[in-house]
Amino acid sequence: MTVVTKDIAFQTKGNCDIIDITPQVAKKVEESGVSNGTVTLFISGSTAGITTIEYEPNLLSDFEHMWDRVIPQNIPYAHNKTWGDGNGHSHVRASMLGASLTIPFVNKRLTLGTWQQIVFIDFDNRPRSRKIVLQIMGE
Amino acid sequence: MTVVTKDIAFQTKGNCDIIDITPQVAKKVEESGVSNGTVTLFISGSTAGITTIEYEPNLLSDFEHMWDRVIPQNIPYAHNKTWGDGNGHSHVRASMLGASLTIPFVNKRLTLGTWQQIVFIDFDNRPRSRKIVLQIMGE
Amino acid sequence: MTVVTKDIAFQTKGNCDIIDITPQVAKKVEESGVSNGTVTLFISGSTAGITTIEYEPNLLSDFEHMWDRVIPQNIPYAHNKTWGDGNGHSHVRASMLGASLTIPFVNKRLTLGTWQQIVFIDFDNRPRSRKIVLQIMGE
Repeated sequence: MTVVTKDIAFQTKGNCDIIDITPQVAKKVEESGVSNGTVTLFISGSTAGITTIEYEPNLLSDFEHMWDRVIPQNIPYAHNKTWGDGNGHSHVRASMLGASLTIPFVNKRLTLGTWQQIVFIDFDNRPRSRKIVLQIMGE
Repeated sequence: MTVVTKDIAFQTKGNCDIIDITPQVAKKVEESGVSNGTVTLFISGSTAGITTIEYEPNLLSDFEHMWDRVIPQNIPYAHNKTWGDGNGHSHVRASMLGASLTIPFVNKRLTLGTWQQIVFIDFDNRPRSRKIVLQIMGE
Repeated sequence: MTVVTKDIAFQTKGNCDIIDITPQVAKKVEESGVSNGTVTLFISGSTAGITTIEYEPNLLSDFEHMWDRVIPQNIPYAHNKTWGDGNGHSHVRASMLGASLTIPFVNKRLTLGTWQQIVFIDFDNRPRSRKIVLQIMGE
């Protein structure tokens, strides 16, 4: 049994930018030397979230509109008085969606569905440099 | 330390069908030969989600109504123009709820509460054949 | 590779009480003797949830108000007819947010961001004694 720590770094545009990180995650798992196990993806930060989705432009737009309806940007957030950076909605969305995702792999392949990609969603209100931690565990 | 991969297959009715998979998960963990560790449940697909709930008919109905209010079926979804299969809401709900759940077990027993069951929710708009991956890891 | 099971016990006030459990989790990981791996936090119960957030009073208030808007307490819940304990909203919120969170650690340190804390949210409508299971796995 082995533990291999990797990370993935990338730039985002912020404002609900949805990034497909599937190819990078698949590559890190393949390179790890671990055949069967899990990869835990974790976001070190409090204004972004992680999930899976069919990465198709119309659906990405539907997903973004859902956030605008359910946790709107243009309502008052007390947090915006704390730092004055106007990203109260970003934090609330991130805490709702969650910062971790654990995906099994078998024979070095992620057990994703055919129409299912791993996505990082940057809820912050400005472009950001981001880094995700990958903890690959197995044998 | 061992990694044991199992799966659970079942039929659903779709349309927010909520399936209690606790007995099957408990059985697979018991049969795995692993005493202490975690089971990661993962949905290979993009129109279903996984969580825990008290599996009680009235509460299941409350949970379903929550989805109808928060991410309704009968509003426009751009995704419905992509494939024409009318399940835009199914995808958005699935991405919100999440595709993975990791549960510890101790002495071959899941650490669930007394009134807490593991549920698979099929958000798709038609009956489906489903399969969940279980990655059982521990010693 | 080792599996170390720990737990954290505490009292809550209920009613969306948000408890910062970061120091306790960090301490348990440090004491475990495991250097690199993951800690899976799991809530044994069906009226509480777990996530990460910037633990800042104004943001906590924003997060609580989000729940009041999205899954209100003062609408009818069928579950309230089952047991008569008036916590239908607590269950629905808990199932939406999720009962598990898996966080990597490297050299005995959690890979949290600077402004990111681990929080337990008690959605129940009364004070509760709570216990979280920590499954620490790694080498």
